[in-house]
Amino acid sequence: MRTPVFIFSILSVAFIAAIGCSPAAPPTASEKVLTDSNQSLNEDKWVLQAGDLQSYKGDAQWKVEKHTLRGGKQDGVEIIEVDNGTLQFRVIPTRGMGILDVNLGDVRLGWDSPIKEVVHPKFINLESRGGLGWIEGFNEWMARCGLEYAGHPGKDEFITNTGAKGEMDLTLHGKISNIPASEVIVTVDEKAPHTIRVRGRVDERVFFGPKLELWTEISTKPGSNSFTISDTLTNRGSEPQEFMLIYHANYGSPLLQKGAKLVAAAERVAPFNDHAAKAVSQWDTYAAPKSGFVEEVYQIFPYADKSGRTTIQLQNAKGDRGVSMNWSLKELPYLTQWKNTVAKTDGYVTGLEPGTSFPHNRKWERAKGRVSKLDPDQSRSFSITFGIQTTKTEVDTVAKEIDALRANRKTKVDEKPESDPFPKPE
Amino acid sequence: MRTPVFIFSILSVAFIAAIGCSPAAPPTASEKVLTDSNQSLNEDKWVLQAGDLQSYKGDAQWKVEKHTLRGGKQDGVEIIEVDNGTLQFRVIPTRGMGILDVNLGDVRLGWDSPIKEVVHPKFINLESRGGLGWIEGFNEWMARCGLEYAGHPGKDEFITNTGAKGEMDLTLHGKISNIPASEVIVTVDEKAPHTIRVRGRVDERVFFGPKLELWTEISTKPGSNSFTISDTLTNRGSEPQEFMLIYHANYGSPLLQKGAKLVAAAERVAPFNDHAAKAVSQWDTYAAPKSGFVEEVYQIFPYADKSGRTTIQLQNAKGDRGVSMNWSLKELPYLTQWKNTVAKTDGYVTGLEPGTSFPHNRKWERAKGRVSKLDPDQSRSFSITFGIQTTKTEVDTVAKEIDALRANRKTKVDEKPESDPFPKPE
Amino acid sequence: MRTPVFIFSILSVAFIAAIGCSPAAPPTASEKVLTDSNQSLNEDKWVLQAGDLQSYKGDAQWKVEKHTLRGGKQDGVEIIEVDNGTLQFRVIPTRGMGILDVNLGDVRLGWDSPIKEVVHPKFINLESRGGLGWIEGFNEWMARCGLEYAGHPGKDEFITNTGAKGEMDLTLHGKISNIPASEVIVTVDEKAPHTIRVRGRVDERVFFGPKLELWTEISTKPGSNSFTISDTLTNRGSEPQEFMLIYHANYGSPLLQKGAKLVAAAERVAPFNDHAAKAVSQWDTYAAPKSGFVEEVYQIFPYADKSGRTTIQLQNAKGDRGVSMNWSLKELPYLTQWKNTVAKTDGYVTGLEPGTSFPHNRKWERAKGRVSKLDPDQSRSFSITFGIQTTKTEVDTVAKEIDALRANRKTKVDEKPESDPFPKPE
Repeated sequence: MRTPVFIFSILSVAFIAAIGCSPAAPPTASEKVLTDSNQSLNEDKWVLQAGDLQSYKGDAQWKVEKHTLRGGKQDGVEIIEVDNGTLQFRVIPTRGMGILDVNLGDVRLGWDSPIKEVVHPKFINLESRGGLGWIEGFNEWMARCGLEYAGHPGKDEFITNTGAKGEMDLTLHGKISNIPASEVIVTVDEKAPHTIRVRGRVDERVFFGPKLELWTEISTKPGSNSFTISDTLTNRGSEPQEFMLIYHANYGSPLLQKGAKLVAAAERVAPFNDHAAKAVSQWDTYAAPKSGFVEEVYQIFPYADKSGRTTIQLQNAKGDRGVSMNWSLKELPYLTQWKNTVAKTDGYVTGLEPGTSFPHNRKWERAKGRVSKLDPDQSRSFSITFGIQTTKTEVDTVAKEIDALRANRKTKVDEKPESDPFPKPE
Repeated sequence: MRTPVFIFSILSVAFIAAIGCSPAAPPTASEKVLTDSNQSLNEDKWVLQAGDLQSYKGDAQWKVEKHTLRGGKQDGVEIIEVDNGTLQFRVIPTRGMGILDVNLGDVRLGWDSPIKEVVHPKFINLESRGGLGWIEGFNEWMARCGLEYAGHPGKDEFITNTGAKGEMDLTLHGKISNIPASEVIVTVDEKAPHTIRVRGRVDERVFFGPKLELWTEISTKPGSNSFTISDTLTNRGSEPQEFMLIYHANYGSPLLQKGAKLVAAAERVAPFNDHAAKAVSQWDTYAAPKSGFVEEVYQIFPYADKSGRTTIQLQNAKGDRGVSMNWSLKELPYLTQWKNTVAKTDGYVTGLEPGTSFPHNRKWERAKGRVSKLDPDQSRSFSITFGIQTTKTEVDTVAKEIDALRANRKTKVDEKPESDPFPKPE
Repeated sequence: MRTPVFIFSILSVAFIAAIGCSPAAPPTASEKVLTDSNQSLNEDKWVLQAGDLQSYKGDAQWKVEKHTLRGGKQDGVEIIEVDNGTLQFRVIPTRGMGILDVNLGDVRLGWDSPIKEVVHPKFINLESRGGLGWIEGFNEWMARCGLEYAGHPGKDEFITNTGAKGEMDLTLHGKISNIPASEVIVTVDEKAPHTIRVRGRVDERVFFGPKLELWTEISTKPGSNSFTISDTLTNRGSEPQEFMLIYHANYGSPLLQKGAKLVAAAERVAPFNDHAAKAVSQWDTYAAPKSGFVEEVYQIFPYADKSGRTTIQLQNAKGDRGVSMNWSLKELPYLTQWKNTVAKTDGYVTGLEPGTSFPHNRKWERAKGRVSKLDPDQSRSFSITFGIQTTKTEVDTVAKEIDALRANRKTKVDEKPESDPFPKPE
């Protein structure tokens, strides 16, 4: 921060100058450091409102607020709530800067997980249930999967401290969404459009292992109906480092319903397994909740526009509510569609998951050439822009954009899952 | 609560009306919500005493108090102490509403575990020591075992998220006693006998797995020498769900001593294994502490009275102190007796454990037809009433009741353990 | 404490009399209990300075201070900082009384681990990564390894609660450095030289397993350039108990550098494995940081002086800075040298680790006769004195002492690692 432009509604909140190591620090923004473990700093409560920023003259009554949850398995979990005056979202620094939900009027990005609390990582054992412990805390709209590995549990090789090959049990979707952020900063641009940013650094560091640093950002403009996730991943180790990163965005009722539709310009759709293969012809429509439904997962290879970007949209049955996701395939080439239309009490949900890979076990993904690598000090950025459509006209406009992007190119729908890179001997 | 009848000894404690979802809420009781994660509410400290309840005119100077432990592995563990004027007990919301101990004069329900602190679940790894991590926090008088599984660790099959059969390592006695309560309520009835209730909801929910909700209650009347545990388990998922529930009640010195006796109307007693078989003829008497003693466990199938209830009693050697347990075999058909008369420093203790099953691994119990199932939204209730006897007359009175219940029916004592449902190929 | 001799710089800090159970309580010291889980006591903040002790008339402006870290994975970690007026060290009660670092001018005992936070044990899963979870929190100058086991992960037998043989996965370096202290006491001697002591009790207790109690102490004299670690381990169980204890002292830049030297009177040096064997001839000198370096570990069997003590020294390349370690081989007969001269960002470090064994898996160490045992109530004490040398003269003086200790006795350098006690069938 350069000048003391904020006027606070609470006392004794000191501002701290921007720290250089954050890759995307805007040059003319005021900043509030909410967490910085280097300084042993962590604010329990904090609030900033439109009226507190002298340079802000807009109409949208935006607000950013931090508080800490109490009770049960969520005791001590930190939440940052952002209201841009039009849409609201909640970020969870304690859970790797995951995003609990986004709301705009009657459109909710989020779902009703059977997990009712925002579970503190101290109550999660990722090794539990054969490596499925992750799902005991899974209820966010957007959970990042990674970083050393994402996807299914199972054995994979690694190099131990002695230089020998060891075997380790990978756990579902990795660690990143159960690591608390070490640095959390809220910034509001001094100049119009006064973009609000919640940024957090989540470190996945192991002594003999990855030294991966993820700077996450979610930003929005006051009054806007869209927002952007924009992350930068850096290898802070001295050796090349594999990584996987999947943005596990989850949608439930009311957007998801019988007849809801995924609009995507897909070059190819492939079922994840034989079970999903049976329903592959209906990949882009959703069924009503059904008890005992077994998940159907599809690999989607999207088409891009000339700049390398694609857009997908989930729209409700009536076609008057929707959410769109727009990103670059150079950053996130693969899209996983997870259909989990179980009973509502069990977690009726679909995941639309752009990623650097599909969520197979890392060993499988590596064999398929979909595990990425970062050189020492190399960074890669990932950005997804989300729009919310609240009228039939808005929904149709986005659907037409996707149609234009497709440009009459065909979709190849595979009848069988991709071949197993490790076939069992017969 | 309908009217503000409590007068508080501490400031600023607000009362909150009873919440409808709690199944056993008494209609004319005043209530204090101590924890409710839905409301992000958790009181660190609270106290309510006889003089605070205007409608109470009795002599017994009862008191209910909440506080939070500090230091070591117990830092952050919440305790609710109830003194009904005659007996005292301590409930641990942080450890699944387990009960640390009960005291009435010189009779203690409890034991001297080598674990000296009330360990916070954040320091417990149930997967540790080959699935025996549970015992690193085991020191309660009463720990519930369950809910997805209870009993010995070992492999069992389950259905993974892909619909395929997976194998998971069950951990000793399940998770429920290491899950913090999400909702805790203290109620005191407005009308005589002004029953005091400490109630807590503990959720064992997994996304691809059980959605089990346990409402626990421990209640007592001011001035009484007895109390009741009364729980209701509900399947909140949309599919039938297996469960196991064992009430692991543990008794040490001074009640347990050389010559102490288990008085029970047993139809059949069977040793758990070959080791226990050697001592089966002395199943109902206890030995002095002995270093290196290896646990002896017995399966007891009790007789019931006409209403389906049974009573057991543990009495000291002199027969002038005792504790009785009375429950319905329709709810908890099996009784496990765990003799662990090791040296005092190692945890001289006996467990008397009514359950829906015996504590074999779930796979074994399922093969024997002792794993229960709940349909969606189905509930089952479990209730045990405990009495404390402090004179020879009182002890004898209970022993006679048990004798009457037996009604001259014989006890079959098996010389060998029940057959292994999974015999190894020879 | 006998008399209220402290005057405090903060209000409302009550002193509590010394508790008898602490084995090394000095008779004429003033004491402050910072943590005692028996009393549910834990101070968040506390400070004591030279001026607060009436009987202190010295020049050194010493200070002892406790605070609690905030943010990220370190949230809630307690730190005790001691400044004796000349040197400073930081003790971590939350991590088994490990010592984060020691500083005297430009000499630092410590290293730059890629783990940047002092990680709270609640974020550590020792079972993770095939039993290597320990390294996700490893950044102390001095971490104790043990107590039930230390060394490499891997399977070992143990006796389960049923008396049967079970197999458990040992995890790297055991639990002790991830167990919070249950009792922490600071004492300052009333009489000159007014020794300052930070003492802590760390319990490693399992119901069916070890009941080990470790009283740790780090002490220094105001103005001194040395300090002493002095621990007492007691078996509180009724049966003989194996244990392992290794003092994992870690040194990085600037002391460790290309050309830095380990000065030791070694009777024998043996490589840990074939990889280390290749470089055994240069065991006592250090290389520059190198990305991808694979650790080289050496077993050192030191010579002792007539009283059974040995001294080693790590000196920098110029020979004008050094640290010395002096201890009794009767207490800690084995010295492990861990060379991990990887790139600076990956953790350029050497470990000099006196222990009751080498850090092989316990099964290996037991087969080699290096696993110790304690009878019931038996105690063993371990003490290491550290000196810091800040001039060439001081460094040379210590090096000459080591040379005198050697007394022209030779060093046998093995070309091959010790034989595997469990050779695989060919």
